[in-house]
Amino acid sequence: MNDYCLATYRCFDEKADFHKKAQSIAVGLTVGSWTDLPEAQKKSMEPHLGLVIDVKIFERGANPALQDRYADIQIAYPDVNFSRDIPALLVTVFGKLSMDGRIKLLNLSFSPAFLAAFPGPKFGIQGVRNALDVQDRPLLMSIFKSVIGHDVQGLREQFLQQALGGVDLIKDDEILFENPLTPLTKRVEICMEAAKQAEAETGQKLLYAVNLTGSTSRLAEQAERAIAAGANALLFNVLAYGFDTLHELSTNPNISVPIMAHPAMAGAFYPSPHHGVSASLLLGKLMRIAGADLVLFPSPYGSVVMPKDENMAIKHDLLTTHLEQDYMYAHTEGIHLVPSLKTSFPVPSAGIHPGLVPLILKDFGHEVVVNAGGGVHGHPMGAAAGGRAFRQAIDANLNGSTLVQYAEDHPELQAAITAWGVKE
Amino acid sequence: MNDYCLATYRCFDEKADFHKKAQSIAVGLTVGSWTDLPEAQKKSMEPHLGLVIDVKIFERGANPALQDRYADIQIAYPDVNFSRDIPALLVTVFGKLSMDGRIKLLNLSFSPAFLAAFPGPKFGIQGVRNALDVQDRPLLMSIFKSVIGHDVQGLREQFLQQALGGVDLIKDDEILFENPLTPLTKRVEICMEAAKQAEAETGQKLLYAVNLTGSTSRLAEQAERAIAAGANALLFNVLAYGFDTLHELSTNPNISVPIMAHPAMAGAFYPSPHHGVSASLLLGKLMRIAGADLVLFPSPYGSVVMPKDENMAIKHDLLTTHLEQDYMYAHTEGIHLVPSLKTSFPVPSAGIHPGLVPLILKDFGHEVVVNAGGGVHGHPMGAAAGGRAFRQAIDANLNGSTLVQYAEDHPELQAAITAWGVKE
Repeated sequence: MNDYCLATYRCFDEKADFHKKAQSIAVGLTVGSWTDLPEAQKKSMEPHLGLVIDVKIFERGANPALQDRYADIQIAYPDVNFSRDIPALLVTVFGKLSMDGRIKLLNLSFSPAFLAAFPGPKFGIQGVRNALDVQDRPLLMSIFKSVIGHDVQGLREQFLQQALGGVDLIKDDEILFENPLTPLTKRVEICMEAAKQAEAETGQKLLYAVNLTGSTSRLAEQAERAIAAGANALLFNVLAYGFDTLHELSTNPNISVPIMAHPAMAGAFYPSPHHGVSASLLLGKLMRIAGADLVLFPSPYGSVVMPKDENMAIKHDLLTTHLEQDYMYAHTEGIHLVPSLKTSFPVPSAGIHPGLVPLILKDFGHEVVVNAGGGVHGHPMGAAAGGRAFRQAIDANLNGSTLVQYAEDHPELQAAITAWGVKE
Repeated sequence: MNDYCLATYRCFDEKADFHKKAQSIAVGLTVGSWTDLPEAQKKSMEPHLGLVIDVKIFERGANPALQDRYADIQIAYPDVNFSRDIPALLVTVFGKLSMDGRIKLLNLSFSPAFLAAFPGPKFGIQGVRNALDVQDRPLLMSIFKSVIGHDVQGLREQFLQQALGGVDLIKDDEILFENPLTPLTKRVEICMEAAKQAEAETGQKLLYAVNLTGSTSRLAEQAERAIAAGANALLFNVLAYGFDTLHELSTNPNISVPIMAHPAMAGAFYPSPHHGVSASLLLGKLMRIAGADLVLFPSPYGSVVMPKDENMAIKHDLLTTHLEQDYMYAHTEGIHLVPSLKTSFPVPSAGIHPGLVPLILKDFGHEVVVNAGGGVHGHPMGAAAGGRAFRQAIDANLNGSTLVQYAEDHPELQAAITAWGVKE
């Protein structure tokens, strides 16, 4: 019994015979040639042959959202053809093919055998909740406002104000690299000290995700250095380094803190309907398999916008209990279920203000991190009040109250609504 | 005097105030806010502030190739904001921005100070020529036809036939990963033995680029193992691992052989006019800076096609002597020229047959590797004849003869022309 990973493509062409195209992908990206092989050789090559699983053709006009003729094509690739790492899988299913006309990689489904090589998030949603000791509500994160050009004292003050507002997580700006003004270990020490100071006031724990940057081969050592200095979470620009690097970091036993995946560069891949890789595969499934405990992505609500269906697909891939369930080409007798991967926290981001909290919780439920930068720092009463306004918006929702009602005796929320409005 | 790296974007919007948009990029991706800063703080923040260098607006219809209103925007980013590595630069200039509407990263120009951290190709065109002892003609490369499911003896025979045809380089298929049938070191040993056997007949040297795969942290060790087994070149799927990994491999003193960059996954980035990263930046400038000695990319002639102007832009970026020359925002008194990077061999690929050689040499000149798979293996007289037909096509061109003339007393070339035709 062979194991296969499945790739689903959307392939655009005004005239192509899509069944023939599917066949040429299945053969061309595996054994190279098939029909002209001698019968004896076919027997030995068959375990390596890709299979066409499905071809759904959409004639021009069938989908009002796309002005083209296209087909959704699903191909099964034998696991035996590639090593159990994400670069090998991606190069197999979309290496050469990515350049061959208008084609987008929509989805991948992994065989249980392939998936067994990926322990996934080390902490996951439950691990992050346990670290914070918050089980019963959506989490709140804030982002430093301006960091470049500031010294550690400036950062400390920003950190403290955010922490005093009752946020659960604070993350570095993803464009803050190793620099003389706020070097990594110094930054960690001083921010974690501010976190303790805030905890004494708020009674609340806090994770600080410090940005892991620099040369690929030194990331692990740098992570350990950050952890030794007190860091209790890491931020990582996964797509600038490749999924395998995240996989190696997340499986490194010395990296004992949650990893937050930033989507920097993701817009080079997902927004075109005709090219690239779908948002849900890129920022959902692959991030989770590679071991991200939390994943940021543009929300449908704010300033940098992703369509809502794509957001919901990311959510699905981060939260689905059994990833094997979408392994649809199940040789039922051969399938061996592997322990499920932990789930990853979805963090819809960019341009979020307290008035959007009801929408976020409606779409994402409680397993979500509400994340804000300007919505915290730009609050008319200051950053600490900004955090409080968000916490109040979350509490309102948990209490079944509208924000407008709840704001009546919560001045921070009231000020936020006056500044940015409310959508519920 | 500050050093800056320059990014050029194409930004699409039917209504935007592009000057305002440019300003918001320059501020938003550097200091975060500017106009509302106190004057005293402006002074300390100014070295970190991004600058709008140029905004060229194209109203709808101005460019017949693009049905949109757009602007080409150039922003200067202070070097002081990012560490001297490609992930930091890309995350700075196109991390968040890649997701912010319809925008494509067209080009980057590096300050001499930034460029100084990148020694570039260790061998470059001249080093590859010296290793092969071929100075006076374009090179010829062939690719294994089918590799998956074959054992080392099958590979050896394929290798030998290709080598006997007089090719200069042979590369692994990029989808051949570590596997029990043809494990890396065994494959290198047996292929290099075939190379020696062929050399005894042809008197010609040969580089075999073996595919470097698997976990990121073990690539260097694996490269050293391949070299110890006799490998004299490496193939690497750069985009599946990130440019920094290529940079680290190419600067590793123990990796003493040329590195060939494969463009696998590049089609996820470059083909959309509205999103992603231009082909010339992705497969030209960044590959060279990261240290690729040879770079494959789809040609404008064959089966997987890239527009010719994009091909010529890649060629330009691989072959330009002084990369600093395109550092246009030169503070003349501050500029300090660094030693030029070596040039990288362009390898236009996919669907190449001997009848296309005149076109390739006309467009690329002599500093090019003619690369073929099916055009060698599918030759009616066999793979060795396939190689000879290509060499004859190159010789014809060097002798100022047309292929049709030259084919009169070169039966391999004649058979190729009969099979695939000729364009000159």
